Amino acid sequence: MSADRAKPLRIGIAGLGTVGAAVARLLFEHADLLQARCGRPIVLTAVSARDRTRDRGVDLSAVAWCDNAVDLAGHHDVDVVAELIGGSDGVAKQLCEAALSAGKPVLTANKALLAEHGTPLARLAEDNGAALAFEAAVAGGIPIIKALREGLIANRITRVTGILNGTCNYILSTMRETGREFADVLAEAQDLGYAEADPSFDIDGVDAAHKLAILAGLAFGARVSFAAVQVEGIRHVSAADIDYARQLGYRIKLLGIASLSPDGLEQRVRPTMVPADRPIAKVEGVFNAVMAEGDFVKSVVLEGPGAGAEPTASAVVADICDIAAGRSGPTFGVPATDLVDHPALPPGAHYGSFYVRLSVVDRPGVLADVAACLRDEGVSIESAIQRGYDPEEIVSLVLISHQTRESAILAALDRIAALNTVTEPPRMIRIEAE
Amino acid sequence: MSADRAKPLRIGIAGLGTVGAAVARLLFEHADLLQARCGRPIVLTAVSARDRTRDRGVDLSAVAWCDNAVDLAGHHDVDVVAELIGGSDGVAKQLCEAALSAGKPVLTANKALLAEHGTPLARLAEDNGAALAFEAAVAGGIPIIKALREGLIANRITRVTGILNGTCNYILSTMRETGREFADVLAEAQDLGYAEADPSFDIDGVDAAHKLAILAGLAFGARVSFAAVQVEGIRHVSAADIDYARQLGYRIKLLGIASLSPDGLEQRVRPTMVPADRPIAKVEGVFNAVMAEGDFVKSVVLEGPGAGAEPTASAVVADICDIAAGRSGPTFGVPATDLVDHPALPPGAHYGSFYVRLSVVDRPGVLADVAACLRDEGVSIESAIQRGYDPEEIVSLVLISHQTRESAILAALDRIAALNTVTEPPRMIRIEAE
Repeated sequence: MSADRAKPLRIGIAGLGTVGAAVARLLFEHADLLQARCGRPIVLTAVSARDRTRDRGVDLSAVAWCDNAVDLAGHHDVDVVAELIGGSDGVAKQLCEAALSAGKPVLTANKALLAEHGTPLARLAEDNGAALAFEAAVAGGIPIIKALREGLIANRITRVTGILNGTCNYILSTMRETGREFADVLAEAQDLGYAEADPSFDIDGVDAAHKLAILAGLAFGARVSFAAVQVEGIRHVSAADIDYARQLGYRIKLLGIASLSPDGLEQRVRPTMVPADRPIAKVEGVFNAVMAEGDFVKSVVLEGPGAGAEPTASAVVADICDIAAGRSGPTFGVPATDLVDHPALPPGAHYGSFYVRLSVVDRPGVLADVAACLRDEGVSIESAIQRGYDPEEIVSLVLISHQTRESAILAALDRIAALNTVTEPPRMIRIEAE
Repeated sequence: MSADRAKPLRIGIAGLGTVGAAVARLLFEHADLLQARCGRPIVLTAVSARDRTRDRGVDLSAVAWCDNAVDLAGHHDVDVVAELIGGSDGVAKQLCEAALSAGKPVLTANKALLAEHGTPLARLAEDNGAALAFEAAVAGGIPIIKALREGLIANRITRVTGILNGTCNYILSTMRETGREFADVLAEAQDLGYAEADPSFDIDGVDAAHKLAILAGLAFGARVSFAAVQVEGIRHVSAADIDYARQLGYRIKLLGIASLSPDGLEQRVRPTMVPADRPIAKVEGVFNAVMAEGDFVKSVVLEGPGAGAEPTASAVVADICDIAAGRSGPTFGVPATDLVDHPALPPGAHYGSFYVRLSVVDRPGVLADVAACLRDEGVSIESAIQRGYDPEEIVSLVLISHQTRESAILAALDRIAALNTVTEPPRMIRIEAE
């Protein structure tokens, strides 16, 4: 090891989008700093990208160019491959597999790849004695992977809760601040570049679900399973819901929650009401945050930039430095062969309280009918709010349940939706008060 | 290394207070978990404490007992020493020196020891090829040392800002929530066990200054210097200041701030006004938080339990696991021989805005006299508030300065204090708006 330390560590970057270019720039600008901290030089020796001519704000004239990214895996001048191409399959996956098979460490910012293929890739890495690192894949510049895998290693983790998508958090924060509706704020976010032209990947929760699957694997020693994540995005959150949340002392956040209990492993992304005074409720705008709860540490929250070229480059290079300094460990905290399939928490098994908003015709007996549906499913109500009084018009009726099984409230909502005084599908939002 | 991995790592704990007992309990309760994560068993083999008979809630009958803690350094059955005795000198220091000299890794929760002797201890550790780890010394269960040293390794750190003392944060939070005065809230905190019978170590900022000196060493590759930290505690923060802060959109926090600029290294603990919407302003009660700012990552905040036996044990055992897994690096981020003495920012050189509260006799011309003192020192005023109107009575006059050198405002306050209409020493609080 000590002989290795003096040798430069040679990096090949695949993908020179904004993140790849920022990594290259960081490696050049901080070459001295990184050498002092890692005990050996870290040198960018090769890159691969589609367009060789584009100006990326960094001088790559002294660096080898590979037209085919997969060639970096076998490149004689590359010790470590940084995969910054993206996509759960195709070239990104081929490159990672080829590099790991050749015993070369790989680091990646590719959440889709890890969420879909994390376990076999970890197995491949460990079989070949090569690190597979992915700090940049979750929550951008926030060092949450290191915190979970090493900083909180002494804990049995019970729950991980994250604001994992900056676009959604920006939209929900702006809706709350301005009282405007979702579609309106989304259009503005698109104009500002905070949301993509096709926003579904973000607003339907897929991006957050990729990240949650990775966090759950790490936190619970579980085989990574994106397919097991139940996902609901923020399209149906209305200005009315946000306003009721405010009145009730909550904020609505798109939370990814992974928790392990004797009933099974829950992995769920959905709009959630959180008490307004909790640290995670106060994370606003494009920021990300992750709360980790463990039996000894209780609760730790990390907050910071969840995206952006420079913060993401900070995370990518942190992984490079771990490799340079010889710091390693199993990819997902325990050897890949020991990762287990925790049984999934059955749908509807979550136990907690819920917010329900109904659109009803304001008529005597409506509340009695609704209350009967809830009673018949064993759901008891903590509070009910009807704003205004407008006979024979459509008004909102908001209910907060006591702690109950989600399946019970869903069954009650099926009955309620069938009442002829209920004019729209009921809206239900989980309340996460603990 | 791989041969080492299979061997158990044998731990000796010096000091069985609440933290030491929690570490022992953690090592027993999570033995399987830790072995799976570290790739080798971690075994508590020896302990040392004053009272052998006390019930610490953990069965130590199978563990060797050393009456003299320093004997752990040479104990044939101990690979790693956990120093949990405390105190900047005496047995704690002797033990650390003896263990490191013998080439045995040391981990410690001892902030005073590191703040006073961190650099020579790091040198001793590195000369002997033994790790010196101290995650538990700063901010309890929050993995801030690992985050700064490894997670943010790719950044040139520009500033570290911390709420580093839970007692002070509890007192300031409670003052804000209840409108009560300092002495009253301190007495209550003592009753609740949140403050010591002799609270000066906490409320005068010494504890926070120890932690800040350690963070500054790590963040800036600096020789650790507790003596260079300028310290002001919270005794002089009044309910009036807290109320004015609220009106102006700020919260008062006891912040440790370490920042490196071309003018020098600032290390300072003092009450500070922070905009109420900043993440660090929202950290309430006994929690700790640290914000690290770097050139690539921008800003990351870690928040969590800053004290308590179990969270601190989580940090101690994280260090043990790094050693077990062979993860290491220089103690303060770069080799101890490369740590530098950054010139200290001269007193008064801080440039920023300030809150000033004066007790004045309500009389025509007072504001003109005060304003003249400020003008003569080149300080311009953003706003002035006099609440009420009470001729010839004593009223509060609150001023917020524009950005200025601290030395200028201090000189102006000297002049103001000499005015015969000013009845009490002026109160000044730094505003940290960026």
